[in-house]
Amino acid sequence: MHQLIERMFASAFRNPILEQMGDGAVATLGGTRLAFTTDSYVVRPLFFPGGDIGSMAVHGTVNDLAMCGARPVLMSSAFIIEEGLPMETLWRVVESMAGAARKAGVEIVTGDTKVVDRGKGDGIFINTAGVGVVAHTLEIGPKQVRSGDAILLSGDIGRHGIAVLSVREGLPFASRIESDSAPLASLVMTLLDAGLEIHCMRDLTRGGLGSALVEIAESARIPIAVEEVTIAVHEEVQGACEILGYDPLYVANEGRFICFVPASEASRALQLMRSHRDGSAASIIGAVHEGARGMVTMTSRLGTRRIVDMLSGEQLPRIC
Amino acid sequence: MHQLIERMFASAFRNPILEQMGDGAVATLGGTRLAFTTDSYVVRPLFFPGGDIGSMAVHGTVNDLAMCGARPVLMSSAFIIEEGLPMETLWRVVESMAGAARKAGVEIVTGDTKVVDRGKGDGIFINTAGVGVVAHTLEIGPKQVRSGDAILLSGDIGRHGIAVLSVREGLPFASRIESDSAPLASLVMTLLDAGLEIHCMRDLTRGGLGSALVEIAESARIPIAVEEVTIAVHEEVQGACEILGYDPLYVANEGRFICFVPASEASRALQLMRSHRDGSAASIIGAVHEGARGMVTMTSRLGTRRIVDMLSGEQLPRIC
Repeated sequence: MHQLIERMFASAFRNPILEQMGDGAVATLGGTRLAFTTDSYVVRPLFFPGGDIGSMAVHGTVNDLAMCGARPVLMSSAFIIEEGLPMETLWRVVESMAGAARKAGVEIVTGDTKVVDRGKGDGIFINTAGVGVVAHTLEIGPKQVRSGDAILLSGDIGRHGIAVLSVREGLPFASRIESDSAPLASLVMTLLDAGLEIHCMRDLTRGGLGSALVEIAESARIPIAVEEVTIAVHEEVQGACEILGYDPLYVANEGRFICFVPASEASRALQLMRSHRDGSAASIIGAVHEGARGMVTMTSRLGTRRIVDMLSGEQLPRIC
Repeated sequence: MHQLIERMFASAFRNPILEQMGDGAVATLGGTRLAFTTDSYVVRPLFFPGGDIGSMAVHGTVNDLAMCGARPVLMSSAFIIEEGLPMETLWRVVESMAGAARKAGVEIVTGDTKVVDRGKGDGIFINTAGVGVVAHTLEIGPKQVRSGDAILLSGDIGRHGIAVLSVREGLPFASRIESDSAPLASLVMTLLDAGLEIHCMRDLTRGGLGSALVEIAESARIPIAVEEVTIAVHEEVQGACEILGYDPLYVANEGRFICFVPASEASRALQLMRSHRDGSAASIIGAVHEGARGMVTMTSRLGTRRIVDMLSGEQLPRIC
């Protein structure tokens, strides 16, 4: 259904900026290169270990701007509130948003509130949009990916999805797992300020690492190979996934991204990432190969190779 | 409740741009002066005479940018869709948005889609955000309002509210009234391009003309006097309001605005407005007086004066 809707939008709103198909749009306005992005948040429950809908709504937009190579500057916040929501719940969410915005160095400068009747919403839905400044001249996106590029991953995967699920489904064995929800702009600015030649970045939200790799391979029409052993998964996340029958490759994250750089820049990129507190567990997970087909393969811990497919349907609904 | 929530946001997100309290935020990024705004749309029903949630979501954001004196350039569109929504309904809304964006000269460059379970939404909620370029050096806002300023209204009032209500409540006597939903940017650009010294603009959405006047009078701490006879109300809107017990002064509009200019510019402003197809029914409805109190008074058709109050509570829920 998501694919159908996306094709519908792409055909109706047809324009060159939309067709960049990035996490946000990059355009030049009055001589200034800007990034612009939006996301709605319908996560359930509103509060989970390591975060809540408010901090997530800030991180999500900050991260989409960062993935465009932009420094996040301005944000909007729009709330759709279901009648009967306790004011203290709203206040907790608003305070969390304000704290997350302060930490990420963005200002929430405009907003909107709508109230819908009981039973016509679900507590709180939040939409945030963001504007950032692109201060470099790099083009960053799937079209810039080249054969030979190294692929870096900024940390361990799957924690956000399992943290939300542990509360939603009441899973005691997963209760110590905290969401990775975090702003990525500071780490990305460190890479850009060092003059790193970044070809493409993508944050690993809905659909996880697997879907992000497949999307980029398909957009760039180029094969990608990754090594399972280089992809960090927290022991408790791995355990929870085994019990639940999930593949951590497709579990949602809210503070992780992948980054494509020329092979010659790979070790410098890794060093830069690891020297930053938000990328201390970064690794090089694979590379782009030569070829004309957008296929992702993964070599397992046992040495076997498998094809990484696009997940059909949503593994976990309302995870963000 | 709205006031409470707005105070909550203002205190949590505290920053000088938010405190402008305009229809959008104006900020300078990388040397370019920009306006940035957002709104969510939860109107019920989705389709009504003269418009639908899709065209409205474009007009609303275009108009908020125009009210900042900005030329709308980029827009985002984010959908929260309730499971089970017929795809043809979604397609009608998306096509209407695309058409409205084309007519208003903005490009929808980024977006998002979330699906929520049946009973946790209400068909479609849309959020749009917009970025516009402010090409002049005027400051436009309540703080610029001066005693002596003339107040212009761009057309007749109350049609949007009554049009939506006629469908929602099945009112046959109101069925020929069409919403005034329309983009105002072209008309506003005509005024700005003519070098008109605009002090303040506000579009008359939720709360109508009455609430907009009171908000500006209170923000500017200055008394406003208007003449009822100069405020155009369509005969059928007037009739519907009388039957329903509504005051057209507080009925929502989606394509009308008020504009404050120095008295010396009033007749030129009126001429400019009337020469534009979207302002052909414009009028001068009143003026700003001297004084330190933010009070709005209206002289009725019979010559009596009354105080125009802020409406307590929402006259019509989910009108936008």
